[in-house]
Amino acid sequence: MPRIHYQQRLAELKNKLLAMAALAQQTLGCAMDGYMNGDMVLLHHVQENETAINAAQRSVDEMAYDLMAMEQPMAIDLRFLLAVIKINGDLERIGDQSVNIAERAADLLSRPAADLPVNLRQMSDLTEKMIRFALQSLLDGDAAMAKSVLALDDDVDQMNRDIHKAMIAMIQQKPQWTAQALSIVIISRNLERIADHATNIAEDVIFWVHGADVRHHLSLATD
Amino acid sequence: MPRIHYQQRLAELKNKLLAMAALAQQTLGCAMDGYMNGDMVLLHHVQENETAINAAQRSVDEMAYDLMAMEQPMAIDLRFLLAVIKINGDLERIGDQSVNIAERAADLLSRPAADLPVNLRQMSDLTEKMIRFALQSLLDGDAAMAKSVLALDDDVDQMNRDIHKAMIAMIQQKPQWTAQALSIVIISRNLERIADHATNIAEDVIFWVHGADVRHHLSLATD
Repeated sequence: MPRIHYQQRLAELKNKLLAMAALAQQTLGCAMDGYMNGDMVLLHHVQENETAINAAQRSVDEMAYDLMAMEQPMAIDLRFLLAVIKINGDLERIGDQSVNIAERAADLLSRPAADLPVNLRQMSDLTEKMIRFALQSLLDGDAAMAKSVLALDDDVDQMNRDIHKAMIAMIQQKPQWTAQALSIVIISRNLERIADHATNIAEDVIFWVHGADVRHHLSLATD
Repeated sequence: MPRIHYQQRLAELKNKLLAMAALAQQTLGCAMDGYMNGDMVLLHHVQENETAINAAQRSVDEMAYDLMAMEQPMAIDLRFLLAVIKINGDLERIGDQSVNIAERAADLLSRPAADLPVNLRQMSDLTEKMIRFALQSLLDGDAAMAKSVLALDDDVDQMNRDIHKAMIAMIQQKPQWTAQALSIVIISRNLERIADHATNIAEDVIFWVHGADVRHHLSLATD
């Protein structure tokens, strides 16, 4: 394969991954809007997207694998291909977590509406922002932007802890709303996991750009 | 690098990954024993292991990356190296989930003991068995054994759903035990996720051995 064709194929792979990312973001958006608006149609869309995400994941993995097998990628390209494979896995899990959110949201809709003192919109906005920034850093090869994602993860963790506490207090006052409050706890934990996946993506971008492994070096988050 | 040295390095990498796996299994075992026996010393060990797991993960990833960059691995070796990198990520997450379990177990110990009608031992035994079988299939390059792991995942999912329901019923009777019951729900979900990671590992072994991508092809589970 001539070198120029190879560079084209790397660019195609990046586009394929970004399409996969758009699908994962769309799925999360549907799940959260379906939950916020009590919209079963949106929640059904989430289930349908899962199949498309799984097909997209396979397609990205296969293309990355073919490029590795047929070429002898140089260091920077090899790091890019490995980053693509890892990011692809994180995007698929964002899809899975979104399906979990949609399941809990559907369960909430099937029960009497409970007036719970909780608003997950702020948490989901921040989580979606982390994904957006992580993907932008991938698009631009921008390690500084990727680092800004790492700093946001602590805020999402704290929101999750606050919601957990608030729901315990709520259930003790109104045990009849236990099932509903438990669904909120689980949606909140899913959002927290999605934020972890956005963090992983940002770390993989840094690995691609710098060749440095920043995982578990949290001090970098505040550079 | 002469070919024989290269084969030696691949064998070394497999050993490194198995040591990482032993650490992850040990951490899960400590977390569950700490929970079952209310043993704070064991729960502290879990936190300590996390650092060791993170270091081991970096070391495996770096060695796999070096082998890819310095050699031009043939198809079967390339698939093996990619499988190692993915399995390594799943083992690290098993470690993370075990830390989450230990945190909820420590929270349980800090509260009045609640007499909850739940036994997580069966679920954790099955989950640990899935990890063990997945690793054995890696050791032996045995795709049939790997497939047997996929079939067990549904049982763990069902146990998680049963525990979720039982805890909702329990809280409605005894709201004063809400925090404790919520911790059980979360430990159960962590075990369910760990079973998912064991499933991922089994799928990666099949990919390595057969070159086929079995993800999302659940019919293979019952071959």
